[in-house]
Amino acid sequence: MPKVEIESGMNIAPDISNPRLTRKVTGVDQNGETQEIAVIEERPLTIFLNRQEIVTAMTIGDYPEYLALGFLRNQRMLSEADEILGVDYDEELETVVVRTAIETNYEEKLTKKTRTSGCAVGTVFGDIMEGLDAVKLPQITVQTSWLYELSKKINTTPSLYLEAGAVHATVLCQGDKPLVYMEDVGRHNAVDKISGWMLSQGQDANDKILYTTGRLTSEMVIKTALMGIPVLVSRSGFTAWGVELANQVGLTLIGRMKGKRFTCLSGSDRLIWDHQEGEEG
Amino acid sequence: MPKVEIESGMNIAPDISNPRLTRKVTGVDQNGETQEIAVIEERPLTIFLNRQEIVTAMTIGDYPEYLALGFLRNQRMLSEADEILGVDYDEELETVVVRTAIETNYEEKLTKKTRTSGCAVGTVFGDIMEGLDAVKLPQITVQTSWLYELSKKINTTPSLYLEAGAVHATVLCQGDKPLVYMEDVGRHNAVDKISGWMLSQGQDANDKILYTTGRLTSEMVIKTALMGIPVLVSRSGFTAWGVELANQVGLTLIGRMKGKRFTCLSGSDRLIWDHQEGEEG
Repeated sequence: MPKVEIESGMNIAPDISNPRLTRKVTGVDQNGETQEIAVIEERPLTIFLNRQEIVTAMTIGDYPEYLALGFLRNQRMLSEADEILGVDYDEELETVVVRTAIETNYEEKLTKKTRTSGCAVGTVFGDIMEGLDAVKLPQITVQTSWLYELSKKINTTPSLYLEAGAVHATVLCQGDKPLVYMEDVGRHNAVDKISGWMLSQGQDANDKILYTTGRLTSEMVIKTALMGIPVLVSRSGFTAWGVELANQVGLTLIGRMKGKRFTCLSGSDRLIWDHQEGEEG
Repeated sequence: MPKVEIESGMNIAPDISNPRLTRKVTGVDQNGETQEIAVIEERPLTIFLNRQEIVTAMTIGDYPEYLALGFLRNQRMLSEADEILGVDYDEELETVVVRTAIETNYEEKLTKKTRTSGCAVGTVFGDIMEGLDAVKLPQITVQTSWLYELSKKINTTPSLYLEAGAVHATVLCQGDKPLVYMEDVGRHNAVDKISGWMLSQGQDANDKILYTTGRLTSEMVIKTALMGIPVLVSRSGFTAWGVELANQVGLTLIGRMKGKRFTCLSGSDRLIWDHQEGEEG
């Protein structure tokens, strides 16, 4: 796996100069005039766990190893106990294989699932919900000044979104510092890449904040909670079930974070109001 | 299935007064002041095809019958040849069962898939791509004045998005008229509900335009093409593969439709430039 490089103060920042991630396409604009615009690449990546093919994800294609690791971890197909022997990416075959010391019983589980609850499409929801009851997130405080600072830094970082649009971002943060800034055509891929990075770096989740451009749905709340991250921030809105689950697991949930405004629908008693009105945000 | 009612000039418009679709939640705003906001509901709906459980989708919960029908059709689990005997929704159990005259071989196929290509998560991509080679979309012309008119009508229609945020919309249109305006927490659900409506009403796809608030990814292009709709319009951006596939199947693809601006990356030779500059858009 590639060693982490420090870039623009972050451990990982968007790599807008990577020619594999965007493509120039010619079309016409509203006046019928020829226009060349950058569009985002989207390619299939098939993830294997040992000999078992698990899924083909549509992704921009950076950090396939982190995506595979994070996906399998977030789907509970890899447990903390699993010893990972290697993660092998084959660019030509568009596959990534995660090898573990002991093969999991996932193949058996998969066959059972097909019969009992259907697994053709969508997420293996039962399995994801399974771990949630046991989750007790640390009750860390969050300074409101961090939120404004993070929002500003994230929105002004040169990104694939600003370059070509059609991607979601997820940023792993600590205090007022963005650490790892991932983008992808799938908003869940961006989170999974963060999860894979944390797993491979042995990062502690307890003092982290997760920022996403996506909506605060039940799936996003569950994923963040299972990753052990106690704070989730978004510029987008909420679903009712997302709010319910956040309150249940003690996740601080902040949405509609735009300019000087935000809404906190879970954990507002853990906010520290150190941002003065009139300050630049 | 409920009979279609004409409302605000559309066959189906967003029902913002439906108390099942949004909920008031109390939180705090950026100044620490108590704030009550409307958030969108998100509930599980488990779709059965005859005796086979297929998937649990997260949905706002309106039009479960259309969602189930459209989902199964768009996933190629229902073919045009299948005679549908009934669609039974059980609100309490949060299930919907689609019954066909002859049980499909989907159960067998599902078991096979598990062994050969893994079906745990994500879409059954192979199956979806399968039908695409045979698709020949009708080469209909599109007046640019329609695009501005549709965009204006859709954006000014009272909607769950304006009410509570966190939903995507998909609107089935004909010429400059929006016919069916669906919203959902899942952008694919909104398309599937349109598909289910078309199927149950025996609607012809050849003269229709599909408008979506979501991005123009490969999945969205494939889905539109397989539904037989020749024009796809979005306020969001493109992926490179989405553009490639649109050109391949002859789908007119218009994105970044905002105010007076848009970008056409496939089928621009079928546009008729009847919108005069300076006209109100």
